[in-house]
Amino acid sequence: MRALVTGGAGFIGSHLIDRLVSRGDHIVVLDNLSSGQLSFLDHHQSTGQVKVIKGDLCNFEDVHAAMNEDIDCVFHLAANPDIRLGTRVTDTDLKQGTIATYNVVEAMRRCDVKKIAFASSSVVYGEGAPLPTPEDYGPCMPISLYGASKQAGEGLISSWVGTFGLQAWIFRFANIIGARGTHGVIFDFIHKLRKDPTRLEVLGNGLQEKSYMEVGDCADAILHVMSIANEPLNLYNLGSHDTASVRTIAEIVVDVTGCKDAQIEYTGGDRGWAGDIPKARLSINKMLESGFDVGMDSEEAIRHTAESLLAEIGLEDES
Amino acid sequence: MRALVTGGAGFIGSHLIDRLVSRGDHIVVLDNLSSGQLSFLDHHQSTGQVKVIKGDLCNFEDVHAAMNEDIDCVFHLAANPDIRLGTRVTDTDLKQGTIATYNVVEAMRRCDVKKIAFASSSVVYGEGAPLPTPEDYGPCMPISLYGASKQAGEGLISSWVGTFGLQAWIFRFANIIGARGTHGVIFDFIHKLRKDPTRLEVLGNGLQEKSYMEVGDCADAILHVMSIANEPLNLYNLGSHDTASVRTIAEIVVDVTGCKDAQIEYTGGDRGWAGDIPKARLSINKMLESGFDVGMDSEEAIRHTAESLLAEIGLEDES
Repeated sequence: MRALVTGGAGFIGSHLIDRLVSRGDHIVVLDNLSSGQLSFLDHHQSTGQVKVIKGDLCNFEDVHAAMNEDIDCVFHLAANPDIRLGTRVTDTDLKQGTIATYNVVEAMRRCDVKKIAFASSSVVYGEGAPLPTPEDYGPCMPISLYGASKQAGEGLISSWVGTFGLQAWIFRFANIIGARGTHGVIFDFIHKLRKDPTRLEVLGNGLQEKSYMEVGDCADAILHVMSIANEPLNLYNLGSHDTASVRTIAEIVVDVTGCKDAQIEYTGGDRGWAGDIPKARLSINKMLESGFDVGMDSEEAIRHTAESLLAEIGLEDES
Repeated sequence: MRALVTGGAGFIGSHLIDRLVSRGDHIVVLDNLSSGQLSFLDHHQSTGQVKVIKGDLCNFEDVHAAMNEDIDCVFHLAANPDIRLGTRVTDTDLKQGTIATYNVVEAMRRCDVKKIAFASSSVVYGEGAPLPTPEDYGPCMPISLYGASKQAGEGLISSWVGTFGLQAWIFRFANIIGARGTHGVIFDFIHKLRKDPTRLEVLGNGLQEKSYMEVGDCADAILHVMSIANEPLNLYNLGSHDTASVRTIAEIVVDVTGCKDAQIEYTGGDRGWAGDIPKARLSINKMLESGFDVGMDSEEAIRHTAESLLAEIGLEDES
């Protein structure tokens, strides 16, 4: 199979590509390398199976050119990775989320590419959903601009399924963490401790409680579900069985980094920022019923991630 | 109150403005006059309560200028009115729906305008929802590009509620019909009979079955719900109690126009076009519980609309 992976040089994309290369696929990566890194794909250079195109998903011509490479299936993972940014800059998610997704499905229509997997998010459910939240929860009223762009991406894809005969797998991710992470709470905590090993500032009161899934599990789940689900449109939550609090994450990161004297300080309030959802947990029954289970639950994934990122980033502050 | 009505020179907008003027409001209309008509607002000229700005919702500066007119509340009704267009032109709904709605909420943020009512649609529910469909149905997977843009608009608004403190009333409309209609099945049928009174071509098998609401009822329902619902985000289906088939509509239009010899011919298939939803009916329990009921049900609204449009359009073909 020949796959186009948008955001393929990024965190989740590069792990997915590890698996696609292993099974013998050929991959075209379209990435603007804003948070993705070519080094995440270096280990595939000798295989000749991975071609990287540096391009902008917001530019239709870039997407169309990549789609023209005899593609069988698109994995559309590219997006602004910083959910908080929407509180300050309001057009990033519109452009890099919604309009980029329009460019992807429209290029698919023009190039007659029929299959797409899409990285959506638990944040489309908004606040106040029952926990764990099943796929058929409604109404979905996202409270972050990132969530709005993921919902808009889902709708664009479902309308291309209904109008132009696309086949789609939409995955609503829990918090995906692991090696090569380029953002998120564990990444932030390590960087904070690197700057000041005596103090760790935590946004909110630390009681925010979410579900974490290891990125390797996430990539495996995507490929498993695509191998067994064959409706025109297939919608799956991907997550682990349990949750962890931000307080627990802070304590694990302090432990893993060995910054035993670090004071953990909370900024207070029930959420990290406007648009943050304090409690989130996905129902993963549909994923489990498909025959896939995760290898790690939240705390194990957090510890593994902290260890991996610590090895990548180090604690020596070069700033 | 000073209201901005986007699409105010259009079909639903002009009826809403009739009511806003009656209750003493002042109104700024922002409309590109592509399907809206200044003549729909002529009867308010003497009141001095309605100011019309010809402008493009896709142009942020136009929206920002209109929003700067000391607005208390926005009624965001402007959109591409032609659902079928998305099967041929794929960026109209993205621009005139999604991006226009982004421009509206972003201009609200910058001008500190806090209240918005939004015209969404039953088509956000997609196909296969239980009938009648309640507001909390999920997952919403629209099958038309128009539906995708309405869902994206809902998400943008809900994210501005969650992130920037907007208050919103989102209305998912059934098929709204009535005087001054500029599109839709009854409008199309009258125009077809005007061209050829002996023959009426109907897209699909005529068994498509949807709920129709008279536009005056729709405008009254909007203002009623806004007067009693006061959550940060309020979501209501607006529709009538029953449905009518396209076959019934064709027969009513033939009857009202007096084209008794017209042969009704069906193109076949269960839907009018790719992305059309053959059966749609909204649960209106929430609207009824708010204390509002419609004056007309589907067939009565269809007959009233056919009579009104016939009087406006006439049967003399000038083409």
